[in-house]
Amino acid sequence: MTRTVIESKSKTAIIGFDEPFCVIGERINPTGRKKLAAELEAGDFSTVEKDALEQVACGANILDINSGAVFSNKMAEDPRYADNNFVEPPLMSELIARVQAVTDIPLCIDSSVPAALEAGLEAAAGRPLLNSVTGEEERLELVLPLVKKYNVPVVAISNDDTGISEDPEVRFAVAKKIVERAADFGIPAHDIVVDPLVMPIGAMASAGQQVFTLVRRLREELGVNTTCGASNVSFGLPHRHGVNAAFLPMAIGAGMTSAIMNPVRPVEMEAIRAANFLNNKDPNGGEWIKFSRVLDAVEAGTPFAEASAASAVPTGRGGRRGGSRRRAS
Amino acid sequence: MTRTVIESKSKTAIIGFDEPFCVIGERINPTGRKKLAAELEAGDFSTVEKDALEQVACGANILDINSGAVFSNKMAEDPRYADNNFVEPPLMSELIARVQAVTDIPLCIDSSVPAALEAGLEAAAGRPLLNSVTGEEERLELVLPLVKKYNVPVVAISNDDTGISEDPEVRFAVAKKIVERAADFGIPAHDIVVDPLVMPIGAMASAGQQVFTLVRRLREELGVNTTCGASNVSFGLPHRHGVNAAFLPMAIGAGMTSAIMNPVRPVEMEAIRAANFLNNKDPNGGEWIKFSRVLDAVEAGTPFAEASAASAVPTGRGGRRGGSRRRAS
Repeated sequence: MTRTVIESKSKTAIIGFDEPFCVIGERINPTGRKKLAAELEAGDFSTVEKDALEQVACGANILDINSGAVFSNKMAEDPRYADNNFVEPPLMSELIARVQAVTDIPLCIDSSVPAALEAGLEAAAGRPLLNSVTGEEERLELVLPLVKKYNVPVVAISNDDTGISEDPEVRFAVAKKIVERAADFGIPAHDIVVDPLVMPIGAMASAGQQVFTLVRRLREELGVNTTCGASNVSFGLPHRHGVNAAFLPMAIGAGMTSAIMNPVRPVEMEAIRAANFLNNKDPNGGEWIKFSRVLDAVEAGTPFAEASAASAVPTGRGGRRGGSRRRAS
Repeated sequence: MTRTVIESKSKTAIIGFDEPFCVIGERINPTGRKKLAAELEAGDFSTVEKDALEQVACGANILDINSGAVFSNKMAEDPRYADNNFVEPPLMSELIARVQAVTDIPLCIDSSVPAALEAGLEAAAGRPLLNSVTGEEERLELVLPLVKKYNVPVVAISNDDTGISEDPEVRFAVAKKIVERAADFGIPAHDIVVDPLVMPIGAMASAGQQVFTLVRRLREELGVNTTCGASNVSFGLPHRHGVNAAFLPMAIGAGMTSAIMNPVRPVEMEAIRAANFLNNKDPNGGEWIKFSRVLDAVEAGTPFAEASAASAVPTGRGGRRGGSRRRAS
């Protein structure tokens, strides 16, 4: 059964067919978070540190670190700041250093700038997940050598030079192409985590069914793990957390093995923990019973992050040694 | 695509592969509801009428009517009341008359006493669902002729004379036997709704996976609709509504088409409505958007049944004419 191994200095997270669903915390991302971007521009990493700890407490197994900030003030003074190739690499290094200083959870290095990905690979301990490669030719040629050089797993997003297709057959074909191209570089399928791309059901009624079918095919035909930006599915809808909380169990039932999402939302985390139990990934329900105490505290008025921190719900598989990553150079 | 048609005097409910999930309201059942049993013994049907209206308001598509009452006081005076063959037939007729007097929703006639099933078939308008036949020889020989005579659909439960098997292969074989035996009576597979039996995951870790696999096989290999007592899966667990609310979307994703459940629970009904939307059974999300207004009212403090009644969330397909049922004599 397919297993993708992601490691920090001392902890291991596994995305796998026979593992509990892997939650990749999405909060550390200045894209669309203007306040956070402004803090980072001012050299203030307090929100990053707080978000890291909260997500870990709430049950994230991996933290995504996205360096996509726009530094508007600096840009006005120095035109080099208009270029993300200039801004992101040092910011990625700093973000990783700050997060690693407060928690030892495995990381996911997330940028559209290859130099930022490489800066992240240099800064991260253990064996981080790289986010991402696509089916675009230029991207394949820039990112796959990094994946090979640093011997890390990679998220593969199913779009290519023609954009994002609404046809799931095309998205499957793009994923297949990436897996094949990776194989040419000597990268095994178990180190590729495919994001089949989730469209909003408010805009495309078949979007849910498309993803469930794609996840099954990716798993059965390509033998790869899968992930997605889970909250996309409910974009623009009222009570979207209710939609997300049904989507996640359905995706897990279809065989999806991870998601990039906000773990500081109790409704979604409850759905995932229940789905793990129903999917026979929580033997004896020990995790569910621990989590139900957190829900008790939330019902009594304690904020979810605080209740989670107090209960010390385990995150990932602590105690294992990392360090299996090596440069293939 | 398989469709099971259930009708009242003027309304139609369809359990089908291409239909929204069908909710069969379970509340009208004196088994395990001592207070209700005592009321029925005293000739008081006010709770029955209230439960009927509340379940319809909350989104039930069909109401289950179970006559399994124990009349302890009457039993002390008259030993005939110790026999359910004596108690249930007239009680079933009365229950159906009372429910039909307050709502025109299609019904599901539920008893372990064949004479009560027949009394229900006589009393119910339209084309009710019969609940149930099993793989037990005596039951097959008593119930299938009724199904044929009254030309109604039937729930088939996957246990037989050897009891309930923990082996899903055996439960599949029992379902197959019932479908084949029904065919001998001229009853088509689309009039059989199989209950593959849901075990509690707290007692059997593989219980969820078993059901999802069975539902897929029943659908693909036998072409039948499926149902279950949904809340069984969470028996004995803390925060069981959270488990139910993940189970229902997973079951729907696996192809389950109905459940016998309590529709007066907003968490479960939210999960079902979201899963319908994600399963492309709520084009444009009209049902979800209507339901989200009910959730708004619930968040503002209105009880779910009351908020549902006020919003007039549609139940089943009103307006269609029933009456297609005929005796095959």
